[in-house]
Amino acid sequence: MKKTIAVLQGDGVGKEVTAGAVNVLKVIADRFDHEFHFEYGLIGGEAIDQQGVPLPDETITLCKNSDAILLGAVGGEKWNSIPRHLRPEQGLLKIRKELDVYANLRPVTVQGALADSSPLKREYVEGVDCMIVRELTGGLYFGRPSERVERDGEEAVVDTLFYKRSEIERILRSAFEMAQKRNGRVTSVDKANVLESSRLWREVAEEVAKDYEDVKLEHMLVDAAAMQLIRNPKHFDVLVTENLFGDILSDEASMLAGSLGMLPSASLSSDGASIYEPVHGSAPDIAGQNKANPIAAILSAAMLLRHSFDLHQEADKIEDAVESVLAQGYRTSDIADGEESVSTDKMVEVIIEAIQAPVAN
Amino acid sequence: MKKTIAVLQGDGVGKEVTAGAVNVLKVIADRFDHEFHFEYGLIGGEAIDQQGVPLPDETITLCKNSDAILLGAVGGEKWNSIPRHLRPEQGLLKIRKELDVYANLRPVTVQGALADSSPLKREYVEGVDCMIVRELTGGLYFGRPSERVERDGEEAVVDTLFYKRSEIERILRSAFEMAQKRNGRVTSVDKANVLESSRLWREVAEEVAKDYEDVKLEHMLVDAAAMQLIRNPKHFDVLVTENLFGDILSDEASMLAGSLGMLPSASLSSDGASIYEPVHGSAPDIAGQNKANPIAAILSAAMLLRHSFDLHQEADKIEDAVESVLAQGYRTSDIADGEESVSTDKMVEVIIEAIQAPVAN
Ligand SMILES: [Mg+2]
Ligand SMILES: [Mg+2]
Repeated sequence: MKKTIAVLQGDGVGKEVTAGAVNVLKVIADRFDHEFHFEYGLIGGEAIDQQGVPLPDETITLCKNSDAILLGAVGGEKWNSIPRHLRPEQGLLKIRKELDVYANLRPVTVQGALADSSPLKREYVEGVDCMIVRELTGGLYFGRPSERVERDGEEAVVDTLFYKRSEIERILRSAFEMAQKRNGRVTSVDKANVLESSRLWREVAEEVAKDYEDVKLEHMLVDAAAMQLIRNPKHFDVLVTENLFGDILSDEASMLAGSLGMLPSASLSSDGASIYEPVHGSAPDIAGQNKANPIAAILSAAMLLRHSFDLHQEADKIEDAVESVLAQGYRTSDIADGEESVSTDKMVEVIIEAIQAPVAN
Repeated sequence: MKKTIAVLQGDGVGKEVTAGAVNVLKVIADRFDHEFHFEYGLIGGEAIDQQGVPLPDETITLCKNSDAILLGAVGGEKWNSIPRHLRPEQGLLKIRKELDVYANLRPVTVQGALADSSPLKREYVEGVDCMIVRELTGGLYFGRPSERVERDGEEAVVDTLFYKRSEIERILRSAFEMAQKRNGRVTSVDKANVLESSRLWREVAEEVAKDYEDVKLEHMLVDAAAMQLIRNPKHFDVLVTENLFGDILSDEASMLAGSLGMLPSASLSSDGASIYEPVHGSAPDIAGQNKANPIAAILSAAMLLRHSFDLHQEADKIEDAVESVLAQGYRTSDIADGEESVSTDKMVEVIIEAIQAPVAN
C-alpha cells in the first residue's frame, strides 16, 4: 500500500512523541511492505514563529493532499500573550474545520500492567476497552444564536443546541460500523427525558440500528452514563453521543487509564484526511527533555492505520507491541509510579524491537 | 424552636427510610428542647392510588404552610403503565415547581469507615467533603424553543440554554454563603471557552465574589471538572454550576461514595419551604423488607436542620452519630460488602442511641 501521511508535529513534546510515532510507522511499512511518504507541515506556535499564523495555507494544502494526518500537540506559555484568534490552539480548530471532522474517537483501554495507576481499583478498570464516539461539528458549541439578550428588563444570555437529522445519522452510523468491528454493542447517550434534541437523537438511533442487525443498541441517559463510567466501565463497547456530552464523558473516561500519556484519538473527516493525535497536550514543562511518554502518539499512529487505511493487522502489531513492553515493565516517568523510568527514545526503541521480534509460536 | 415539618413519605422504601428520619428528628427535638410538628401528605404512587393524581392540592397547601419538607422517594413498576403526565415522578416535578426550588445541594462525603466500598482507591476518596450546588430552574432543560424545525429541506431540532443574570446571581450567592460556613472555597464550573452563557456566568461569579472576601473563587471548565472529580476529588469544597452540568457532575460525584444509600440532598426554595430527600429512589425490589439504608434520609434530616432552621449543633449531632455507628461497624446490606448486615430499624436504633449517648470527655 502506498500512502502519504502529513506530519504536523506542533509544539513542546508534540515534536518528540510524533518523531517516535513516525519511526514506528516506518518500521511497520518495512515489515509489511508498504510505502508511506511523510510530508511535514507547520502548525501552532512554531507556525506563528516562522510565518505569523497558527495554520499556514501550505499546511492546509498539504493536509488536503494527504491520506491521513499525524498530529503532535500545540501551544505553550510562550504564545499565551498574543491575541486569542492568533494563538496556537486556533491552528487546531482551523484544521479540524477545513477537513470537516465530524467524529472524535477516544478509545479508553486499560492495560493490565497499568491497572494499578488508575484512581479506580484494579478490579473496576482492568480490561476496560471502550470507544467513545463524540459528534464534533454540531450541538451546543456551534448553534446560533449564542449571544446576550435583554429579558424582563435585565441582561440575559442564550446558547443554542442545534442538530440536523443528517448530522445525527452520520455520527451514529460511524458508531455502529465501529461496533461491528469490535464487540457489537452501541450505547447511545442522550437526555431524552428532557431534551427534544435527544428525542430526535434516540429516534434516529433506532432507525439506524435496523441497518446493523449484528449490533445491539442500548440507550442511556447522560447522568447515568457519568455514573456507569465509574461504577462499571467494562459495561461499554462503543459509546456514542453528541458534542457537549461527549466532551464531558470522554474526559471523565480518560481518567480511568491513570495517565493521559497513554490515550490516542482520531478525528474523522467527512471527505478528506482524518486527523490522529494524542489526547495529551504539548506539556512545555517537560519538552525537549526526552521524558515524554510516546505511547499515546504511537497508539494514534495505530489508529491511523486502522481507521484511515484499514490496515488492521498492522495496527494490532503496534498495539500488541505496546502491551508487551508495558508487561515487561518499561515505564516513562508519567506512569512509573516511583519506579525506575526510561526516556522517550528508549520507549520508542523497545516498542520497535517488539514489532520487529519474530512472532512466538 | 417550634417548627412544622411536612413529611411526604412517597413509595417503596421512601416510607421506611422517612420513618427512620422522623424518629431521629423526634429524638433531636427532645434532646435540644425544640417542638417539631410532623404533618403527613400524599405524593407519588400512593397519591395516585388514593386520589388519582400524583400531587393532590392538599399536599401543596400542606407544603406551603410548613417550614420544611422531608421527602422519601416516589415511583415503582406498579405505575409504569399509566400516562406520563400522571406518573408518580410528576408529583416530584410539580412540588419542586410549586415551591420554586432553584438550588439543588448534593453533598458528597466519604466516611473513612466506608472508603473501601468506593470504586476509587481509599487514598483518593477518604476525607472527601464536597458540596455540589446545581442551578435547578434554568438552562438547557427549560429554555424555549425546544422543538423540531426544518432546515435545508430536512428535519432538524433545537434546544435552548437560557439564563437571566438574576438567576445566575442567586445560585452563585447561595454557593458563596455555603462556602463561608464550610471551607471558604468555591469552584465555579462552566464552559467559558465555548459558551456565551458560561461567559456571563463567569462575569457574574467574579462580581458576586467581591461581596465575599473570605471566600476564594476559582473557575474550572466542565470537562476538566469531570476529570478532577476522579483524579483529585478532595480538591473541592463548594462546586457550583448550571443545571445540565450539575446534573452530570453530581451524579458522577455520587459514585465516589460507593453507595447511593449514603447520600442526602436538599432543594432550596426561593421563598417557601425547602425540600430534603435522599438521592436514592424508591427501590421497589427491596421495599417493605426492612432492608433499606436509612442513612441518606437521616442525613437529609440533618441538612434540613442546618439549612432551613440554622440548627448547626443539632445537624452536627446527627452527622456525628452516623459516623460513629459506621465506625463501630454497623452496615445495612447495600454497604455491607459481604459482611454481616443490620436491618433498617436496627440502623435507626443505633443512630438514635449514638445521639442520646452522653458526650465523652
Ligand atoms: Mg474536553
Ligand atoms: Mg441526574
